Amino acid sequence: MRTRAAVALEAGKPLEIMEVNLEGPKAGEVLVEIKATGICHTDEFTLSGADPEGMFPAILGHEGAGVVVEVGPGVTSLEVGDHVIPLYTPECRECDYCLNPKTNLCQSIRSTQGQGLMPDGTSRFSMLDGTPILHYMGCSTFANHTVLPEIALAKVRKDAPFEKICYIGCGVTTGIGAVINTAKAEIGNRSIVFGLGGIGLNVIQGLRMAGADQIVGVDLNPSKVEMAKRFGMTDFVNPTEVKGDLVGHLVELTGGGADYTFDATGNVDVMRTALESAHKGWGESIIIGVAPAGAEISTRPFQLVTGRVWRGTAFGGARGRTDVPQIVDWYMDGKIEIDPMITHTMGLDDINKGFDLMHKGESIRSVVVY
Amino acid sequence: MRTRAAVALEAGKPLEIMEVNLEGPKAGEVLVEIKATGICHTDEFTLSGADPEGMFPAILGHEGAGVVVEVGPGVTSLEVGDHVIPLYTPECRECDYCLNPKTNLCQSIRSTQGQGLMPDGTSRFSMLDGTPILHYMGCSTFANHTVLPEIALAKVRKDAPFEKICYIGCGVTTGIGAVINTAKAEIGNRSIVFGLGGIGLNVIQGLRMAGADQIVGVDLNPSKVEMAKRFGMTDFVNPTEVKGDLVGHLVELTGGGADYTFDATGNVDVMRTALESAHKGWGESIIIGVAPAGAEISTRPFQLVTGRVWRGTAFGGARGRTDVPQIVDWYMDGKIEIDPMITHTMGLDDINKGFDLMHKGESIRSVVVY
Repeated sequence: MRTRAAVALEAGKPLEIMEVNLEGPKAGEVLVEIKATGICHTDEFTLSGADPEGMFPAILGHEGAGVVVEVGPGVTSLEVGDHVIPLYTPECRECDYCLNPKTNLCQSIRSTQGQGLMPDGTSRFSMLDGTPILHYMGCSTFANHTVLPEIALAKVRKDAPFEKICYIGCGVTTGIGAVINTAKAEIGNRSIVFGLGGIGLNVIQGLRMAGADQIVGVDLNPSKVEMAKRFGMTDFVNPTEVKGDLVGHLVELTGGGADYTFDATGNVDVMRTALESAHKGWGESIIIGVAPAGAEISTRPFQLVTGRVWRGTAFGGARGRTDVPQIVDWYMDGKIEIDPMITHTMGLDDINKGFDLMHKGESIRSVVVY
Repeated sequence: MRTRAAVALEAGKPLEIMEVNLEGPKAGEVLVEIKATGICHTDEFTLSGADPEGMFPAILGHEGAGVVVEVGPGVTSLEVGDHVIPLYTPECRECDYCLNPKTNLCQSIRSTQGQGLMPDGTSRFSMLDGTPILHYMGCSTFANHTVLPEIALAKVRKDAPFEKICYIGCGVTTGIGAVINTAKAEIGNRSIVFGLGGIGLNVIQGLRMAGADQIVGVDLNPSKVEMAKRFGMTDFVNPTEVKGDLVGHLVELTGGGADYTFDATGNVDVMRTALESAHKGWGESIIIGVAPAGAEISTRPFQLVTGRVWRGTAFGGARGRTDVPQIVDWYMDGKIEIDPMITHTMGLDDINKGFDLMHKGESIRSVVVY
């Protein structure tokens, strides 16, 4: 079949909207009509050329929602008409990783996914002249139709709006999951969130859900304060306004250091500040942000020997097929908010405007509605 | 009273054996006759002058065992004749740290202990000319008699030999505790221990007790192999004999990386290797060794985002008054071994020979018997 897609032909260039060929689903695969997709910083990271693993031409996008159009042979958990959210971290429920309760990093299709291919080592997408186009993070939601492995689709309720729940495919789950699955933050915790963008806001509402007593937000941009307060931030710190040592200020503000700190900036210097502002004895710092290639974190080992713990999280530690439907329920039940974070919507033809808004810092999340 | 002690008069000089004055115990304090004390690398670290917090003159030593001679007013948990092990990490059971199950770092007397003083801000030791001598790590076991706070003494059974169980005051508990309290290593784990000295050997026997399936030892010195095997090491890796990448070799040897890795070297480059040879998704690396002042650990944040966890441990995460008596029981019951690790014993007059043996790498542990 043919479908419309925004294709990344090469690094550093705008996406090109075009018709592409899409082969139908093979065994264990599912054809999905994407109804809406968010534009995430990770798409921008790859499109910019900064991602050392980026490959082109490719159809980017990994934060979508849609409807099952066709299922390949052997697919048992999904049927035509099901509403689904694509999962860049699949959940096969059979590999060593899925069977280990300590991780969500299913490895069953990791190597082909990393090469921009389906599990059989080929792509379903091609140019009209036959040139193959790579998949991206196993999702490629910047196409109106896409093919995914069955294990990379979370089945969700049908009354949830695509243009909102697509954000659960990455940002919402990453932020909330970092609190619930990775930190396992307890009621009454005091926490610090570095970076009040789309991820940071979701960390904040995760902390609110988890019953935090204090939620400190740290950002250089005071225009983020209002929205962050809406999601539960109790204290704001602008590093440029702190006299003296930022760590010392944060430790004092949290009564000895935070139980949990979260880096949602991707800046390795901020990651260090986040670790060191965690409480002696038990504070844990969780890295969410993706750092530039080659960047390294560092600290004195004494910080760890005196009880701080340094962790990271990917997709918020969520097992997508299990956890994503629950987060959709939380949204529909009003336990979490998504609508205010989706500041812009547009058609596929205007997708590059979404990237422009991100560059200018004017959007929290832009969503493309097909 | 007067007692004999090995006094550190200044950094970089041998200890001097001399008579010193010792005031009796004040409220909440206990006078202990030290019967035996180990000589630990931390004593050497301070004596050498490398410890930025080192102060002189002081009576070093923190790995002792002895008998209660006198109790001060208000002491309720100990009486004359009790056998005790001094605790450089006390356990008051009342501070925020003691009441938090995530840490063992009791802070109730931290500030005075760090200054080489008893909780009332004074020293019990002085030269015969009246010059005050500082306490060390709250213990000062290089004196035949010493005064400690009640909360810094673990009461142990009377049939245990002082010249063996003194080692539980630091090295044994640090190594075994890192496995049991900090890593909480599960039955069937695969682990790597970097550094096969006194701490590393105790990590190894902790892993054996915890039911590890594979215990890889890493050391530059092949003469350590025999003893390490005795304590449970299943595989030995000499980095100088590995062709290519050490991390890659260790990951392959452990079938994908270790569940737990332990640094018992204090070398920050080894700490990085230890983290990166932990298993993707769930491997945890625990820093035990004390790094030189100013040294920093570093890695790519991707190592944490893909599920590795970086921790540290102090005194093996043990709560001394609660856990140390249990470890003494384990020794007396034959669950752990100590005797082969105590390679040298000597009188107080020969204590500097113990430091010499350490410098030459000829001892695992030297113990001074009074």
